[in-house]
Amino acid sequence: STSTASHLPYGRSTDKIFAPYSVYKGKAALSADPLLPTFSKLESGGLKVDRRGVIMLTLWPAIGERKYDWDKRQKFALSATEVGSLISLGSKDSCEFFHDPSMLSSCLILSNAGQVRKSLSIKAHADGSGYFISLTVANNVLKTNDRLGVPVTTAEFAVMRTAFTFALPHIMGWDKYTNQRPQSANLS
Amino acid sequence: STSTASHLPYGRSTDKIFAPYSVYKGKAALSADPLLPTFSKLESGGLKVDRRGVIMLTLWPAIGERKYDWDKRQKFALSATEVGSLISLGSKDSCEFFHDPSMLSSCLILSNAGQVRKSLSIKAHADGSGYFISLTVANNVLKTNDRLGVPVTTAEFAVMRTAFTFALPHIMGWDKYTNQRPQSANLS
Amino acid sequence: STSTASHLPYGRSTDKIFAPYSVYKGKAALSADPLLPTFSKLESGGLKVDRRGVIMLTLWPAIGERKYDWDKRQKFALSATEVGSLISLGSKDSCEFFHDPSMLSSCLILSNAGQVRKSLSIKAHADGSGYFISLTVANNVLKTNDRLGVPVTTAEFAVMRTAFTFALPHIMGWDKYTNQRPQSANLS
Amino acid sequence: STSTASHLPYGRSTDKIFAPYSVYKGKAALSADPLLPTFSKLESGGLKVDRRGVIMLTLWPAIGERKYDWDKRQKFALSATEVGSLISLGSKDSCEFFHDPSMLSSCLILSNAGQVRKSLSIKAHADGSGYFISLTVANNVLKTNDRLGVPVTTAEFAVMRTAFTFALPHIMGWDKYTNQRPQSANLS
Repeated sequence: STSTASHLPYGRSTDKIFAPYSVYKGKAALSADPLLPTFSKLESGGLKVDRRGVIMLTLWPAIGERKYDWDKRQKFALSATEVGSLISLGSKDSCEFFHDPSMLSSCLILSNAGQVRKSLSIKAHADGSGYFISLTVANNVLKTNDRLGVPVTTAEFAVMRTAFTFALPHIMGWDKYTNQRPQSANLS
Repeated sequence: STSTASHLPYGRSTDKIFAPYSVYKGKAALSADPLLPTFSKLESGGLKVDRRGVIMLTLWPAIGERKYDWDKRQKFALSATEVGSLISLGSKDSCEFFHDPSMLSSCLILSNAGQVRKSLSIKAHADGSGYFISLTVANNVLKTNDRLGVPVTTAEFAVMRTAFTFALPHIMGWDKYTNQRPQSANLS
Repeated sequence: STSTASHLPYGRSTDKIFAPYSVYKGKAALSADPLLPTFSKLESGGLKVDRRGVIMLTLWPAIGERKYDWDKRQKFALSATEVGSLISLGSKDSCEFFHDPSMLSSCLILSNAGQVRKSLSIKAHADGSGYFISLTVANNVLKTNDRLGVPVTTAEFAVMRTAFTFALPHIMGWDKYTNQRPQSANLS
Repeated sequence: STSTASHLPYGRSTDKIFAPYSVYKGKAALSADPLLPTFSKLESGGLKVDRRGVIMLTLWPAIGERKYDWDKRQKFALSATEVGSLISLGSKDSCEFFHDPSMLSSCLILSNAGQVRKSLSIKAHADGSGYFISLTVANNVLKTNDRLGVPVTTAEFAVMRTAFTFALPHIMGWDKYTNQRPQSANLS
């Protein structure tokens, strides 16, 4: 009896899951899905978070009625702390995050730093009926400056808050700390 | 050693679960249970949500003291966003959802569109002591117009809010994104 | 390869778990732990909740300094809806539940109905700094009337609220609705 | 077919997990991670919590720009009730916990009691924009008195609140009470 190679070495499924939460609006669409952390095995036998997980937001523009251009998508990876900021927003609150992807890149072309800048803004509607989420991407090399924005209702934001709250311990890797399945020891 | 056919191809148990949350009141009864999404396998090896999950509400009328007629039940399938709306209702808030099941049907008899219309209303009691949940189903073909309503206490609504909050990531398929069970890699 | 008899027929571990949350105060102690539902297998192959789960509260009296008499314990089984009431209590709210265990007993000695009555009261401190939880058990047969009470701080109540919120879907049986473990299909 | 020794006798993974949530500030750094309870097997076949779990906070000082001295770390183990206190803090609230580790030690050198005292203070910023978390450790034997403090933003505290709320049932051992995995009975 063998189990097939359905796991990465340290317990992560190889099957990529596609279950984004998406909202389609007049000028653009927005989707969100979690990206789990990776773990590396320590010589001591333990598992250590290697690369932190994120919640990936993707926005892409409308190019006609109910038509959207996926090729023009822009992404913004929310860290655990940025997720914490988002899920604790009051109905009148706003927040903004700034990323400079080049600074985080593993290819160390330092001169690239600052050449692509992203900012994500979440701004409450004045009447508390939802938020406007907009993503600005400035690329100094390509001389482009994209801005994509999506209005999100209170109900849609409640889905995001609930799903992000669920996902947060998973992107932190805390779901690996678990006592579940006392019966495992009896599998033989 | 083999595992019996206890799973759908992509990890979903074949055993249907019956664990509805039900409340029985004077004129009707209400029950709620989650219906999980289905997944399809991509050629790349990933899993993609095929049909979104819902929380299914069922209402059926009383026909005597503590007697209810299950044959006259009406159903309303709450989407993720409608669940988001419900779980974020304040104690004085109300909301209403409209469905036109024919428009969503896979059999493309377009002339049916609009012939069955459903609306679900959740209305706060004036004193904040709970909600009145009512479902109206208008069938233009059968010339019927059913209305079923159930008062729900704050405590009962708290159960629904908590259980729906728990279920929401599951009907979205987000519970498939998980790092759990580091020990799996050692099953051999 | 076989799995040992570590499960009840329908997926419940046989190992009873003892992990109560307990608070010890001057006149009595209080503990809480969940009791899971039981399921029966339908001929169709599905699983149906048989007996609903509860959160069991146990109170027992102090009989000296840091000494408590477990033999004099009294129990109160909170239903899902009563748990809903408890976890949605505001810091100034109170609630009370009444049980008549004889009416629920499976031995149909109807004349017993009403001979043992229990009531559980959760009363907010006037200053919002916690609650007083008291259990009254009146036994008309034994002519006894026990009352046990425990003050609970805001922090202790927060533990109960969080743990009960976690446990609620489990005592309802909703944790059986799950998409987890996509890798299962690959066990062979 | 055998499962390797990937579990402690009673269902706990042997792999130690390292996935702390850390914040690095000017004068010190703070990290938090859960420490699960241990269980002992009863003769009756049940499992009983042996040693309660905690959330371990670790603070260690900065010794230069972006340099921190891990050797000078101090730890504070939050009990379930202290976690309850932390996660229910309002944005203007503060709390303080006192530990006397010697009193809890299993080596019964009573004269040590009181010789090491720790206190953890969580104080809201006046403007509600976060908290200041500080740990004081007074060692009467070594004649030392360390104080480490870290300002925590609202977003960072939201991560802690969400992750601690997730972890609380796990450190209590309540995640062992579970109905999940109906399919288990079919593994053969």
